[in-house]
Amino acid sequence: MGFEEVRDELRAFVAEREWAQFHTGENLAKSIAIEAAELLECFQWRPEGDHARVRGELADVLTYCFLLADRIGASPEELIREKLMITKEKYPIERARGRSTKYDQL
Amino acid sequence: MGFEEVRDELRAFVAEREWAQFHTGENLAKSIAIEAAELLECFQWRPEGDHARVRGELADVLTYCFLLADRIGASPEELIREKLMITKEKYPIERARGRSTKYDQL
Amino acid sequence: MGFEEVRDELRAFVAEREWAQFHTGENLAKSIAIEAAELLECFQWRPEGDHARVRGELADVLTYCFLLADRIGASPEELIREKLMITKEKYPIERARGRSTKYDQL
Amino acid sequence: MGFEEVRDELRAFVAEREWAQFHTGENLAKSIAIEAAELLECFQWRPEGDHARVRGELADVLTYCFLLADRIGASPEELIREKLMITKEKYPIERARGRSTKYDQL
Repeated sequence: MGFEEVRDELRAFVAEREWAQFHTGENLAKSIAIEAAELLECFQWRPEGDHARVRGELADVLTYCFLLADRIGASPEELIREKLMITKEKYPIERARGRSTKYDQL
Repeated sequence: MGFEEVRDELRAFVAEREWAQFHTGENLAKSIAIEAAELLECFQWRPEGDHARVRGELADVLTYCFLLADRIGASPEELIREKLMITKEKYPIERARGRSTKYDQL
Repeated sequence: MGFEEVRDELRAFVAEREWAQFHTGENLAKSIAIEAAELLECFQWRPEGDHARVRGELADVLTYCFLLADRIGASPEELIREKLMITKEKYPIERARGRSTKYDQL
Repeated sequence: MGFEEVRDELRAFVAEREWAQFHTGENLAKSIAIEAAELLECFQWRPEGDHARVRGELADVLTYCFLLADRIGASPEELIREKLMITKEKYPIERARGRSTKYDQL
């Protein structure tokens, strides 16, 4: 199963519940931030994380990301690959290797 | 191109830069929350959003989500679909239709 | 200088710029989340934090919190103390001592 | 009651529970981001917000901000006022009046 099948499953899920009306770009962006913080909560007091919860919270962030991508008419795949090309240029292998320094300080 | 090809591209990108050492679960969870807020910033003062920036910021959230999924040995596809089954049960069509109410108040 | 003086300084700052129109509860809540993530960014790749930036980012979160408190007609002081009483009951000293466990699992 | 009294109440609360060990700068920054997202959740699907919950969630963000301020040896009051001076210069009244535009685009 690929990106389009996942998108179609999500579309059907939303359509059946008539939830598209709530899924404005702004509401989806808020939802992504909210779910991202619930994912972070798995690591709030211990760096190793609460494994049992990580899967479910990461799934929630991903789901809202896929919904927003569809809303703006983009595929998650193309978004990731498009950005990866930019990031590769910002962080050339020779200079970025083994360092977590931000590109403007490399 | 499917989920596995995107994962492999990301793996190569990280390996070439020797960045896996920075990609602990905790650091990736922090990064997802940070990028989610940059996405939200596109909608900070206006609900319609700053279109030019939304694509790039959403791409960043997605990228870190894919990296964390890989780190915990899961596919984004399986995570989304697994959670969708749970959400479908929590929000039965008949009761959830046209409402943004949370499941525990439906 | 106390809470009221700080509130009055912030009020004057906002009034002079006619910014109250942008400071809806929702916009302030988004702003708090956005600034909180910039604060978190100081700790993204290193637990000890980027000291030089922490002060400024924490100041931004605090400022928006004070503005939202004023918007809902509350004093930060009373909000903190009111909640502290609730938290004290949720986490009795005997059971909570030396543990980061959430109250519902104590 | 002023800033110092609130700080002292929070210090006593933490000391009695021996929680200072968990309150590293990083953990407090994560906690601020997590609570900020819970505050945002009050506005997730409706701009007017869930009034009943806003007070409590804002209190949580404020509390962790006060704890982090104390941790870095700063007073919330001085942090806010110090930053306000910088922001006033970035946003001169004449140019910023009635506009939500970011300073670098004013």
